[in-house]
Amino acid sequence: MLGNFVYSNPTRIYFGDNAQSHLAAALKEFGPKVLLVYGGGSIKRNGVYDDVVAALYEAGKEVVELSGVMPNPTYEKLLEGVKVVRENDVDMILAVGGGSTIDYSKGLSAAAWYEGDAWENFWVRQRNPEPSQRLLPIGAVLTMAGTGSEMNGGSVITNVAKGMKIGKVFPERLYPRFSVLNPRYTFSLPERQMVAGIFDTMSHIMEQYFSGDDDSTSDYLAEGLMRSVVNSSRAAVKNPHDYEARSNIMWSATWALNTLIAEGKKEDWMVHMIGHAVSAVTDATHGMTLAAVSPAYYRHVMKYGIHRFARFAEVVWDIRPEGKSSEELAAEGIDALAAWIKEIGAASRLSELGVTPAQIDPIADATIIFDAGYHKLTREEVVEILKASL
Amino acid sequence: MLGNFVYSNPTRIYFGDNAQSHLAAALKEFGPKVLLVYGGGSIKRNGVYDDVVAALYEAGKEVVELSGVMPNPTYEKLLEGVKVVRENDVDMILAVGGGSTIDYSKGLSAAAWYEGDAWENFWVRQRNPEPSQRLLPIGAVLTMAGTGSEMNGGSVITNVAKGMKIGKVFPERLYPRFSVLNPRYTFSLPERQMVAGIFDTMSHIMEQYFSGDDDSTSDYLAEGLMRSVVNSSRAAVKNPHDYEARSNIMWSATWALNTLIAEGKKEDWMVHMIGHAVSAVTDATHGMTLAAVSPAYYRHVMKYGIHRFARFAEVVWDIRPEGKSSEELAAEGIDALAAWIKEIGAASRLSELGVTPAQIDPIADATIIFDAGYHKLTREEVVEILKASL
Repeated sequence: MLGNFVYSNPTRIYFGDNAQSHLAAALKEFGPKVLLVYGGGSIKRNGVYDDVVAALYEAGKEVVELSGVMPNPTYEKLLEGVKVVRENDVDMILAVGGGSTIDYSKGLSAAAWYEGDAWENFWVRQRNPEPSQRLLPIGAVLTMAGTGSEMNGGSVITNVAKGMKIGKVFPERLYPRFSVLNPRYTFSLPERQMVAGIFDTMSHIMEQYFSGDDDSTSDYLAEGLMRSVVNSSRAAVKNPHDYEARSNIMWSATWALNTLIAEGKKEDWMVHMIGHAVSAVTDATHGMTLAAVSPAYYRHVMKYGIHRFARFAEVVWDIRPEGKSSEELAAEGIDALAAWIKEIGAASRLSELGVTPAQIDPIADATIIFDAGYHKLTREEVVEILKASL
Repeated sequence: MLGNFVYSNPTRIYFGDNAQSHLAAALKEFGPKVLLVYGGGSIKRNGVYDDVVAALYEAGKEVVELSGVMPNPTYEKLLEGVKVVRENDVDMILAVGGGSTIDYSKGLSAAAWYEGDAWENFWVRQRNPEPSQRLLPIGAVLTMAGTGSEMNGGSVITNVAKGMKIGKVFPERLYPRFSVLNPRYTFSLPERQMVAGIFDTMSHIMEQYFSGDDDSTSDYLAEGLMRSVVNSSRAAVKNPHDYEARSNIMWSATWALNTLIAEGKKEDWMVHMIGHAVSAVTDATHGMTLAAVSPAYYRHVMKYGIHRFARFAEVVWDIRPEGKSSEELAAEGIDALAAWIKEIGAASRLSELGVTPAQIDPIADATIIFDAGYHKLTREEVVEILKASL
C-alpha cells in the first residue's frame, strides 16, 4: 500500500550524447564565481574537463579548482574544501565526476558556511541545515553511473579519524540544481568501475523493494528498473561502448535512487550498512562490497519476506513458479542474483576484495543496524552474514 | 535506445489520505485572490468542497468561484473564464476536480491575459505563450484519476463551434505548481467514471510504449506501470473502496503521463486522436472511446511492430511464448487487453457509446493523423478501424 508522502524533485536533467551543450546556459543562472570540484584527474584524460572548461568560459565564469576528491570522500577533505570556499567566496559548486564528487559537493555546500560541527550535526545526528543557513547551489556533470547522487540529496562521507562512513540525505535545497548526463562520458571508465556502478544501482533498487508484502506502484516501477538494469548490464559487459546499454544504465541509476520507487513504502538499506562498514575498514569499492554481501544477506532474511522474494524470482528473473514452493522459488531468485553477480564480473565474495577473517569483528562493530526491512539483525547475525560472504 | 532529452518536472505532489492537510500551507505561497474552478457540483456532495474552502479560509484567501466546467471542457467556457479572471484580477487558479477541470485551468491561465486568438495560436497552431506573457499559477486538488493533468502541461479543449477537440501540451510554466492527491477523494466517483479513468491511464502508457523496437528504460518503466494498473484495476472493480487499489491507480495515472516514460523515445497517440474525434462528434466519455477503439487499432498496426506486441503479451499479460510465433503471441496480448476491457467494464465497442454507422465518416473527418508510431494511417484505414470497433 502507498503510505502518505510528498513528492517533488527540483533537479533538471540534461541527458544524451550532446548533453554538455546545455551546460553554459545552465551555468548562467548562477553567480560569476564557480568552484570546480573533481577527483583524480581522469576527466583531463577523457576530454570531459575540456568540455566543462569550454562551457565555463562561454558562460563567462571565474573558476576556482578543487581536485583530488577520493572514491570514498573523507570529512578531512571536506574541511579542506570549506577553507577554499571561505577564502574565495564562490557562488556555486560545479561537481564533475561520479557519485563521490557529487556527494562531496553536497556535504561541502552544507558545511561551507556552517558554524557548528558539521560531521556531528549533519552526519552523526542527521540534522538538516536551518532554512536561514547559506548553502551553495550545485550543478553536476556525471562521469559514472550508479550512485544516483545526480538527482537526490545523498551524501556519504567517511570520517577517517573516527573510522566511520555515514550517509546523509539532505533536503531538496541541496539536490543538484541541474545534472548533465552524457552516457559517452562513462565510456572511458575501467570496466570494474562500470560493473561496481551497475551493482550499486541494482542494490539501491533492492534495498527499497525488499520491504513490505503489500501491493504498491513503487514496487512495480522497481521491477521495471531491475529488468532494465539486468538486460543492459549484459550488453554493456559484452561491449562497454554500447551506447544503448550505457544510456539505459545511466538513466536507470538516476531513477533507482531519486525517491520515486521509495514513495509510500518502507525501505531496508542493511546491505548498504554492511557494505559501508566494509569500506570504512578496508576502503574497498562501494558497489563491490554490496555485491559481495547481498546473496548471503538475502538468503538470511528471505524467510521473513518470502512472498516478495518469490515475486522477485518470477518478475525480475523470469523463473517459472510451477511445482515450486514459495521457498524454493525465492531461493532460485537469489541464486539468479548470485549468478548474475558472477556473470557481470562483480565481487562474489569479500575475500576477493581483500577482506580477512580478522577484519570481520571490526566490520561488524562499524555496522549501523536499522530496523526497517523484513528483519532486524543482531550483531551476531551480521557476523554470520559476513562469514558466509567471506 | 534513449534519444536526447531534458527532464524536469516542477509539480509538487501531496499524496495520501491526509493530503489536503498540506493545502493551506501550499496556498500561502501565492497571492491573496484565488479563482476556485470546479465542475458540476459533485465536490459539494462528497465533502471535497468543504475541505478546500476550509483550507482557503485558513490561508486567508479571497475566493472567486467559477463552476460548471464540463467533462469535455469547451473553448466557449474558456472565454467565460477569461472574462471572470479579467474582471476580478485573481492571483492564482485552484482547480478542484478531474482532468477536465485541470486541463481547463491551464487553458484559462494561458488565455486569460493573452491578446491574440488563443484557440488559433495555442491549440490549432500549437504555439507556446511568450516568456513575457502573464500566466496565472495553478494549484490542483484531484478528484478523479486518469488524465495525468495533475503533473503535466496537457490541456485538451473542445471548440464546439468548429467541431474540433485538440490537445495542447503547455510548457512547465503551466504545470500545476502543486497537486493534492487523496485517493479517498475518488471513492464517490461513479464506477463507470473510475473505469474510464483506469482505461485512460492504460491508454496513455500504451501510446508511449507502442513505438520503437529498441531497448529503453522508458519501456521497462511503462511495463511496470501497466502491470500495476492491471492488478489494481481488478481489485478496484471488486471493491471501489479498496484504498490500496485506488491509491495505486491514482499514482500510476500520474506517472503514466508526466513525461517520464516518453523520455528519449517516439510516441504514437493515434488511439487518442481517433478517441478525440469520437468525443468531438458524440460527446462520449474520453476513456471509454479509447477502450472501444484500442483492440481494433492495435490489431491493425500489430504487424508493423510485432516484437513490441509480443513483448507486451509476455511481460504485461504473463502469456507464455513457448511454441508460438511472434504473431500468435502478439495477437494473444491484444486478446488479453480486449478481455481485460470487458472484465473491468470499459466499452468494448463504439456502438455501446451510441455511435451509429452514419457517424463513422464525420469521425474519420475529425481524426487528426500523426506519423509517429509504427505505421501512418490513411483516412481509409481510420474508417476500417472505426468499422471494426463499431
